[in-house]
Amino acid sequence: MPQYVIGVDYGTLSGRAVVVRVSDGEEVGAAVHEYRHGVIERTLPATGERLKPDWALQDPQDYLDVLRTAVPEAVAAAGVDPSEVIGIGTDFTACTVLPVLSDGTPLCKTAEFEHRPHAYVKLWKHHAAQPQADRITELAHRRGEPWIDRYGGKISSEWQFAKALQLLEEDPEVYARTERWIEAADWIIWQLGGRETRNACTAGYKGIHQDGQYPSKDYLAELNPEFADFADTRLAHPISALGERAGGLTAEAASWTGLPEGIAVAVGNVDAHVTSPAARAVQPGQMLLVMGTSTCHVMNAAELKAVPGICGVVDGGILAGLYGYEAGQSGVGDIFGWYAESVGQSHDELSRLAAEQPTGAHGLVALDWQSGNRSILVDHHLSGVIAGLTLATRPYEIYKALVEATAYGTRKIVETFEASGVAVTELIAAGGLKRNPLVMQIYADVLRRPFSVASSEQAPALGSAIHAAVAAGAYPDVATAAEAMGKVERAVFQPRDADADVYDQLYAEYSELHDYFGRTSESLHRLRAIRNEAL
Amino acid sequence: MPQYVIGVDYGTLSGRAVVVRVSDGEEVGAAVHEYRHGVIERTLPATGERLKPDWALQDPQDYLDVLRTAVPEAVAAAGVDPSEVIGIGTDFTACTVLPVLSDGTPLCKTAEFEHRPHAYVKLWKHHAAQPQADRITELAHRRGEPWIDRYGGKISSEWQFAKALQLLEEDPEVYARTERWIEAADWIIWQLGGRETRNACTAGYKGIHQDGQYPSKDYLAELNPEFADFADTRLAHPISALGERAGGLTAEAASWTGLPEGIAVAVGNVDAHVTSPAARAVQPGQMLLVMGTSTCHVMNAAELKAVPGICGVVDGGILAGLYGYEAGQSGVGDIFGWYAESVGQSHDELSRLAAEQPTGAHGLVALDWQSGNRSILVDHHLSGVIAGLTLATRPYEIYKALVEATAYGTRKIVETFEASGVAVTELIAAGGLKRNPLVMQIYADVLRRPFSVASSEQAPALGSAIHAAVAAGAYPDVATAAEAMGKVERAVFQPRDADADVYDQLYAEYSELHDYFGRTSESLHRLRAIRNEAL
Repeated sequence: MPQYVIGVDYGTLSGRAVVVRVSDGEEVGAAVHEYRHGVIERTLPATGERLKPDWALQDPQDYLDVLRTAVPEAVAAAGVDPSEVIGIGTDFTACTVLPVLSDGTPLCKTAEFEHRPHAYVKLWKHHAAQPQADRITELAHRRGEPWIDRYGGKISSEWQFAKALQLLEEDPEVYARTERWIEAADWIIWQLGGRETRNACTAGYKGIHQDGQYPSKDYLAELNPEFADFADTRLAHPISALGERAGGLTAEAASWTGLPEGIAVAVGNVDAHVTSPAARAVQPGQMLLVMGTSTCHVMNAAELKAVPGICGVVDGGILAGLYGYEAGQSGVGDIFGWYAESVGQSHDELSRLAAEQPTGAHGLVALDWQSGNRSILVDHHLSGVIAGLTLATRPYEIYKALVEATAYGTRKIVETFEASGVAVTELIAAGGLKRNPLVMQIYADVLRRPFSVASSEQAPALGSAIHAAVAAGAYPDVATAAEAMGKVERAVFQPRDADADVYDQLYAEYSELHDYFGRTSESLHRLRAIRNEAL
Repeated sequence: MPQYVIGVDYGTLSGRAVVVRVSDGEEVGAAVHEYRHGVIERTLPATGERLKPDWALQDPQDYLDVLRTAVPEAVAAAGVDPSEVIGIGTDFTACTVLPVLSDGTPLCKTAEFEHRPHAYVKLWKHHAAQPQADRITELAHRRGEPWIDRYGGKISSEWQFAKALQLLEEDPEVYARTERWIEAADWIIWQLGGRETRNACTAGYKGIHQDGQYPSKDYLAELNPEFADFADTRLAHPISALGERAGGLTAEAASWTGLPEGIAVAVGNVDAHVTSPAARAVQPGQMLLVMGTSTCHVMNAAELKAVPGICGVVDGGILAGLYGYEAGQSGVGDIFGWYAESVGQSHDELSRLAAEQPTGAHGLVALDWQSGNRSILVDHHLSGVIAGLTLATRPYEIYKALVEATAYGTRKIVETFEASGVAVTELIAAGGLKRNPLVMQIYADVLRRPFSVASSEQAPALGSAIHAAVAAGAYPDVATAAEAMGKVERAVFQPRDADADVYDQLYAEYSELHDYFGRTSESLHRLRAIRNEAL
């Protein structure tokens, strides 16, 4: 009798459940549940209170509703008997984090605090903790904290410590009542398996957990005396390796999902990182690019190296036993969308015309910083530049230049890894752009390397299911499960030499502008300051 | 009984005749004639021969047709008795130049040469003589020719010597038969008044006539031995000051126009320069900006100064007795048009939204070089740049940034004049953009100066009419006639201090990019080379 596992991918607006066959990774059924509250950005539903700019909250009830609706629907769609399901795994956006009591109750679900914005889930894109993030980074450098280099020299406002410090400083009452400060990725596992444990991935990438410890009490006290015991108290969850069994499905969770009580619940994970095994991109040197509105680059390596400007390097952050490196480009597909919308033309039409034009014939180079630069400059206050415009420049040429700019950005990241002694042996694309022929051909040409493509259209959920299979004991480890259940097409897009030669020239132009606007000139920062002053 | 004069403005696609009252400059009638051949850019009508890229020819018959149609129609529309007309004046695009026999017959109107492209009028925007222009400039610097500094260090491919050298080197037979190489501005006067004479304006700005002489025989011989006698032979026309009487209307021209034989024909002139008296912008320090697809800046000064990067300074080039300075921006309104078309939105809509937004709130700065830079960098191979783009940037914000960029370009020119010791005391706008409220308010704010506006909607023709009145003896000189007949509204657009403060900051950003892309980096030139190689 075949066995199945469930993977649940928690995105920004919805959760997707997929039923996967353990033996070969075949995806046999799926269902999606849209969050009822979506992203809470303007007013708090409980009170109508207006939220400040850059806030982004969620209601954790929506996450439970995914378990109640999408999971049983996916099982029904698969035509699988629930008794054939041996495990469940999940992945989440990150850092998406919430304050809870020691029994896991979200503070926003208590009568005392349901009217307080700070009691809710802070979604990854809650950007209101920038002042705290700046202080965290600045103090780390000033004190010479050893962990700061693991994060490209900068701690993001999206991450755990910045968001917690904002909570402490803006709503000390809610902070005082917070017994655990937990990633939604781990909270949902707690709800499924009944056990509080933290996954090594978010602990490392978002929680500054390095070499077995969080930032020191001294450091935290210098940030804010009231913050000194934050890690000792509110982060006091045990940490588990990815692929481990976090617990057995509780009776309550079994009643929500319709799955057998006691089946394996895998340790939580993050959407980008969990995609690696789904694309069989787990060996050292296999770089997975999750290419959508933004791009996340994740790769394993056997050794720990300092790679400037990456988002983070974490022991066991992607696969237990290897160092997981993460880099990123904060704007990719959303840049193409922004431009297509501004000229009122379709991606198809712009792409068709762009593909017909010889490489380099537009005479343009752009910087892909419309949404800032995550790697390797780690500067969210940069902005985009387009150079080489003439009265003959047509919209499809600018569109093409923007696609190319994101490819140059990826090349910059790959070259930085290799210059730091971390070899990149294969490039594997996942995400919404992975089969876009214009985008992928340009990437292959710009990087002068073939691109492989993850086969699954719901790769994060497949990755979560792979972790569930390992947690259930069906495979000895994630790498072995990935070999059996992951799916990839090798070298789908091949570089073209003549085009790659032209792109070498254009990349040199990109590099000049990259260094000028990113390192030499303060022009883009001043333009932003002028804008902020005017607004 | 009132007296009248006729002004005829020869544009790129049509000629416009205006009947003007001598006493006060009142425009009492007008008519337009579209050239039958328009701009000959693709094939030669006589043979169907395909022209090479960058060629732009005209048929001189079209110029005569304007005299036959538009002039009598304008007189009829004015309800004026032709006997009340005392003079006629004209202005032309420049450098628009043709090879003729010593009696004025265009070579393209001879049976021998009507099938040869080089026998036709080369329109100002014929850009196929760039290799010759490059050699002319390079040799001038190498030999240390004193005149090269009068032209901002560069001789344009649009000008007389480049076009003539192209003729010699590409069609020596036509060159050998050429007895005079004459501006259309002067050829039309020859047809009207029966006398060959060259105006001081085109001789100076387009013909490298400085301090009473053309470039030396030695210099010309070094360009090409066959070119040594070019100035001595083919430019052997007498030179006349602007406002002089070139001759009396011939019987033949009287029959074309219906005007009295013998009335004054004024010396030829150029469209931008002739506009100065029409806008009463003839006193030293009054800078006239003819703002349309491009902008031409013309201004008189009492002294000769070296102003870097201007198009030219010519003794009597605008008004006899003063030094006439000319500078230019090669792309202005055509940049706004290019952008509006690319996003498929109207100027009105983009302007309305742009005007509503506080100054600086877009966080953008652009370089206005989509059509190259005429002043002060004198580099037609530059291209446009936009910096500060984010995913929140809307099309009207880019539109506004482009308008601002052209204002910064004008500020750069004005500051360069003043830094060179040539004071600019008033700014007066003419041309199609002069009443555009978004554009003019931005210019006033960026330059922190009021802008006056030329009142006439057909200012070049009015300027030509003013010259006709002077040639007819109705006024002692052009300045006096301008005072009586020219029309201007003073200080229509006033700078706003708060906005000007923000623009000071943005102009500093423009200046940084201007110097980086225009002087330090070769990036834009390399992008163009990559483009040209790809095409």
